[in-house]
Amino acid sequence: MAFGWIDEQARLRRRDGLVRTLRPRAADTALLDLASNDYLGLARHPEVVEGAARAARTWGGGATGSRLVTGSTELHAELEEELAEFCGFEAALVFSSGYAANLAAVTALAPHGSLIVSDAGNHASLIDGCRLARGSTQVAAHADPDAVGKALSGHDGPAIAVSDTVFSVDGDAAPLAALAAACREYGAGLVVDDAHGLGVLGRDGRGAPHAAGLAGADDVVATVTLSKSLGSQGGAVLGPARVIGHLVNAARTFIFDTGLAPAAAGAALAALRLLRREPERAARAGAVARELHSRLTALGLEAVRPDAAVVSVRAPSPEQAVQWAADCRAAGLSVGCFRPPSVPDGISRLRLTARADLSGAEIDRAVQVIGETRP
Amino acid sequence: MAFGWIDEQARLRRRDGLVRTLRPRAADTALLDLASNDYLGLARHPEVVEGAARAARTWGGGATGSRLVTGSTELHAELEEELAEFCGFEAALVFSSGYAANLAAVTALAPHGSLIVSDAGNHASLIDGCRLARGSTQVAAHADPDAVGKALSGHDGPAIAVSDTVFSVDGDAAPLAALAAACREYGAGLVVDDAHGLGVLGRDGRGAPHAAGLAGADDVVATVTLSKSLGSQGGAVLGPARVIGHLVNAARTFIFDTGLAPAAAGAALAALRLLRREPERAARAGAVARELHSRLTALGLEAVRPDAAVVSVRAPSPEQAVQWAADCRAAGLSVGCFRPPSVPDGISRLRLTARADLSGAEIDRAVQVIGETRP
Repeated sequence: MAFGWIDEQARLRRRDGLVRTLRPRAADTALLDLASNDYLGLARHPEVVEGAARAARTWGGGATGSRLVTGSTELHAELEEELAEFCGFEAALVFSSGYAANLAAVTALAPHGSLIVSDAGNHASLIDGCRLARGSTQVAAHADPDAVGKALSGHDGPAIAVSDTVFSVDGDAAPLAALAAACREYGAGLVVDDAHGLGVLGRDGRGAPHAAGLAGADDVVATVTLSKSLGSQGGAVLGPARVIGHLVNAARTFIFDTGLAPAAAGAALAALRLLRREPERAARAGAVARELHSRLTALGLEAVRPDAAVVSVRAPSPEQAVQWAADCRAAGLSVGCFRPPSVPDGISRLRLTARADLSGAEIDRAVQVIGETRP
Repeated sequence: MAFGWIDEQARLRRRDGLVRTLRPRAADTALLDLASNDYLGLARHPEVVEGAARAARTWGGGATGSRLVTGSTELHAELEEELAEFCGFEAALVFSSGYAANLAAVTALAPHGSLIVSDAGNHASLIDGCRLARGSTQVAAHADPDAVGKALSGHDGPAIAVSDTVFSVDGDAAPLAALAAACREYGAGLVVDDAHGLGVLGRDGRGAPHAAGLAGADDVVATVTLSKSLGSQGGAVLGPARVIGHLVNAARTFIFDTGLAPAAAGAALAALRLLRREPERAARAGAVARELHSRLTALGLEAVRPDAAVVSVRAPSPEQAVQWAADCRAAGLSVGCFRPPSVPDGISRLRLTARADLSGAEIDRAVQVIGETRP
């Protein structure tokens, strides 16, 4: 039968404890959320919700076409202008997802004959961008600017280095300044995905490139998501105007995709304005992460020191990670559970996100539950 | 300089009349829209808008995480159930875009060692899916089931044929029944993108697979968009439950992407329910397309006979296509303009979409303007 081979893969997943199933959540739940990427606690903020609703009323339920046909509204342009200004870049281009933004940036900036040097810990969307690009890819050791420089030194022609700014699995930060220096030594561009940095790192949450003094440089391009700190959906590429103009003309996931829904653009814009008005949210997310880390390691748990708002706690096996997360859940705490093949090194983890709006009592409760349910 | 090579590409685009620029639109405009993919005229329908606003109020501005972590709400499950039931498939899985849904379906169903036979006119997202997949790809002549059968006959192991149901550029339909027969002869699966069929083709708009008697078959998978007939944003894969379960576990654009924003899910669900209540919208879109076609060809213009709601009118050159579209716009009519590299055959076109809610007077006006501005 046509798709018969699927059953054998399903059997192997069951055997290895790696089956994933969807668990739709209710709108209101007593669970304490340390699993979402809603770092600033803005997804359900009344102003963000009203931003979405107002945009839908003004512009309709969808963008109605590609950004190049009917899918660009004045709302998209407004969001792009404010995002670029906030993050310190010359221009921005909004996509329907961060995944699409990453595919666009990597494929459009790595033409035939070019080299991409990609960090071994990069997000799936950057890896897929490398696979789709016409240029060739060399994978560099994780967070290793020397390895990046070495790979670049052997190439003649256009080249980029590609890295997450904050790695999603362990929450560690890339050495951006050293990466940029390595790129500049060889005339290469630097493309960084700031999905987990925007809203958390940099002055008032302007992101990791801004913190590293790289925002607005003519050889640096950043991608961000609107679906994490900004509580909405979508992604954006930030960079020099010439690069953004190039993407408009060359990036397939921009040209051949429907524009971001107005409601998502409206929600993201409202969240961005909220963050500008209440910049203390950014610092608070990082502080919560550091507190979670120090209290969990004090209990003897193995956790990576967080550079942003993700705290990753090691589990002994995929099965025990799943059980641990289930036990947390049963005790009222929602945590992420990362297992192979979603983790590059095969190590399973609980993944905690440190929301800026967690109270002291909620942090106490989270630490207690995680400690009591440890395998 | 790092991105210096971009300037030369920009120069070539200017020389060849192929520069694309964004033109953000205002919320209210006197332009008559024959350019959007809002086939049923639902994007600004009050029920669709209210569906978006209500979902944002209930669930927040974003899904807050991957569908496998916190990004699956009961609203997503409801939409998946109703979409699958309406289109006649066992199960459905909603994505943040149709692009992501196509990448998912093709990559997850074409493992290492498998063969993909891909129609030469397929959408960019299917082509990118082929390029990302671990299986190898053979491109078959456009709308040619014999060529598909021939390609499949030479392969041992899992195989799929991949095709748009309605091709976006010319609006012609794929020979679905013959494609399915060719696939079945060789035990291959059929994956079809019904982006331009849903809401227009099949009984009450159930789509091209339903019309061809293929919906619900154990060897057929369909993808759809929520951003065209359903006036929202997003995409979905429809198929047997075992295939959908496989995608949940194996499709990278599902696992590593943030879930579709609640507002988009809510708008799509409201549009789907509207279509069920007012199924005459589906037939009307097709009738408008046929009327546009017959009246434009009566003026001596060269247009492809429409199988759905897209009417494609040939232009002599890219420059003249751009000028023609600009002249239409100056006369109050918004039309699509497709040029290389967005067209596989290098032929530039005006692309008209036949909205179900166009009045007789609006059709008169559109035909008159297009005729009067012809190059």
